[in-house]
Amino acid sequence: MIRIALDVMGGDFAPHEILKGAQETLKKVPDLSLVLVGPEEVLRSFPASSRAERVPAPEWVSMEESPSEALRKKPRASIRKALELLKAGEVQAVVSAGNSGATYAGALFVLGRLPGVRRPAIATVLPTLKRPAVLIDAGANVDCKPIHLLQFGYMGALFAEKILGIPYPRVGILSIGEEGGKGNFLVKRAHTLLSQSDLNFVGNLEGRQIYLGEAEVIVCDGFVGNICLKVSEGVAEAVTEMLKMEVKKDPLALLGFSLARKALRRFKKRTDWREYGGAPLLGVNGVVIIGHGRSDALAIKNALLVAKKFIETQLVERLSEALKQEKAQKNQALQ
Amino acid sequence: MIRIALDVMGGDFAPHEILKGAQETLKKVPDLSLVLVGPEEVLRSFPASSRAERVPAPEWVSMEESPSEALRKKPRASIRKALELLKAGEVQAVVSAGNSGATYAGALFVLGRLPGVRRPAIATVLPTLKRPAVLIDAGANVDCKPIHLLQFGYMGALFAEKILGIPYPRVGILSIGEEGGKGNFLVKRAHTLLSQSDLNFVGNLEGRQIYLGEAEVIVCDGFVGNICLKVSEGVAEAVTEMLKMEVKKDPLALLGFSLARKALRRFKKRTDWREYGGAPLLGVNGVVIIGHGRSDALAIKNALLVAKKFIETQLVERLSEALKQEKAQKNQALQ
Repeated sequence: MIRIALDVMGGDFAPHEILKGAQETLKKVPDLSLVLVGPEEVLRSFPASSRAERVPAPEWVSMEESPSEALRKKPRASIRKALELLKAGEVQAVVSAGNSGATYAGALFVLGRLPGVRRPAIATVLPTLKRPAVLIDAGANVDCKPIHLLQFGYMGALFAEKILGIPYPRVGILSIGEEGGKGNFLVKRAHTLLSQSDLNFVGNLEGRQIYLGEAEVIVCDGFVGNICLKVSEGVAEAVTEMLKMEVKKDPLALLGFSLARKALRRFKKRTDWREYGGAPLLGVNGVVIIGHGRSDALAIKNALLVAKKFIETQLVERLSEALKQEKAQKNQALQ
Repeated sequence: MIRIALDVMGGDFAPHEILKGAQETLKKVPDLSLVLVGPEEVLRSFPASSRAERVPAPEWVSMEESPSEALRKKPRASIRKALELLKAGEVQAVVSAGNSGATYAGALFVLGRLPGVRRPAIATVLPTLKRPAVLIDAGANVDCKPIHLLQFGYMGALFAEKILGIPYPRVGILSIGEEGGKGNFLVKRAHTLLSQSDLNFVGNLEGRQIYLGEAEVIVCDGFVGNICLKVSEGVAEAVTEMLKMEVKKDPLALLGFSLARKALRRFKKRTDWREYGGAPLLGVNGVVIIGHGRSDALAIKNALLVAKKFIETQLVERLSEALKQEKAQKNQALQ
């Protein structure tokens, strides 16, 4: 039985939507048990069962708090407690939709990094017109050095290969203009390092090419990566909203859309970020899944399923093994 | 009669689509004359008229060339010649869909900056669910200092106020997380400067908030701004494509969509970047409009219309005047 710790105080809609998501997951996924971590008075409302353990943590980190300060001042915060359960081997993964900076800082502090990794990073799977692609880093490291981007390339490629099952994935770097000479200081220098690596490096990618599916791994710093994700969500929402507005003006179009109901539902599912679950924090010593801050019950269920998949596919062990091999092969790149 | 110089060699689809766009514009807009700049053999195909002058330039800058090198090695390039016509007062604006780095470098060299401006920047108008918003810088300056971002805020606000007619526009800085403490080094320091300014500064904006219309001016460095634009285009295209794919699977949905034809056409127009024309390079001493690299005839026509509007509304004079006032009021911020 797989056991996952869930931070019930993480996210804009915590604890209500988190608990609801937990309940729905337990109902639908039989071979999974949850350890709910949060204040006693919150947990009390959750029906106890053999598959739902409740571990009290009297404090929690809000979305606005400074991660390093929260880590120092709140040793009994729910996310910290959840990570400690993982460290102690009592659970196999942690899921939190809370303050991602605090989850990152806590994971570094409690679990530590895999050998050879300088900066763990958030890897998000994006839908494209072809295969799904991995964007790394999606927000853990806002200021990066070229060597960090090289490592993100290695971790992202391993993830795409071992978890998504894409052999020899194409790795690109998010930039402006396709030519290698284009980009900011960081990207130009990272481009040189990536070109010299043995990755299947395809050079600069423009924002447009991500969604055309022109690479399976997209490397960027966490500032650019997070903006890229949030802009994507915003555009998808705005485009859908504009479509609705135009259709509402016109009775014939309204009728037409009611005929297309099923196709529209499939479309909505395909463009809804909640369907893609959480994003793993790659490079720490354990399965840590970062959920979207605006997670509702559906998003939490999908984040838990992602965690389950990563446990089953032995993500961390494989990554650790692959990093060791990389290290043996070239003592330069990952040191 | 307004006279605009058009670089016929600029853009992925030059010269064919550029010439086609010129021809369509002349047909539809009577109070406009064009000066077409490009190699003689290309211009020869264009029907001469009292409203279409042809100025030969034997060289041109390709999309891949290094801007500074092109500027040095090709003194007779079409974009350079067009800018010289503007400098000499023979035209009132320049439009080019070519290598935007070369247009930027050429404009700096030939026209110079308005007094007080450190870095001219590209201001792009974005559609949002509320009013249009100005994103500045959309790609001219890939590596910026905090003071540059402050100036972009001033130029963007003047543009929103004087050209878009939005009094006291809200200015936000593109970042990750809404709180002031979040962002990379550059954004955190620019946030401090913007907070101390007399702009209507609303703090950090997440990518999602751009399209919700939560500010009228969005400040960012040109690297992030350009990625933001290209990602937006990519998502809008991908979402539309996914919708088509789902509808095609289902005959009933196909029928429904044929009923909604008109609404879909309005929607397409609203989300099509080509409808929004070109983006002005703010802060140089003249009206320079940068068209999208993938411009077709329609996009060129709209870029020419944008140039015309900027001439009519005396964009550069107003900006220059406003900058002088700003400078008089606070000798700090714009120096």
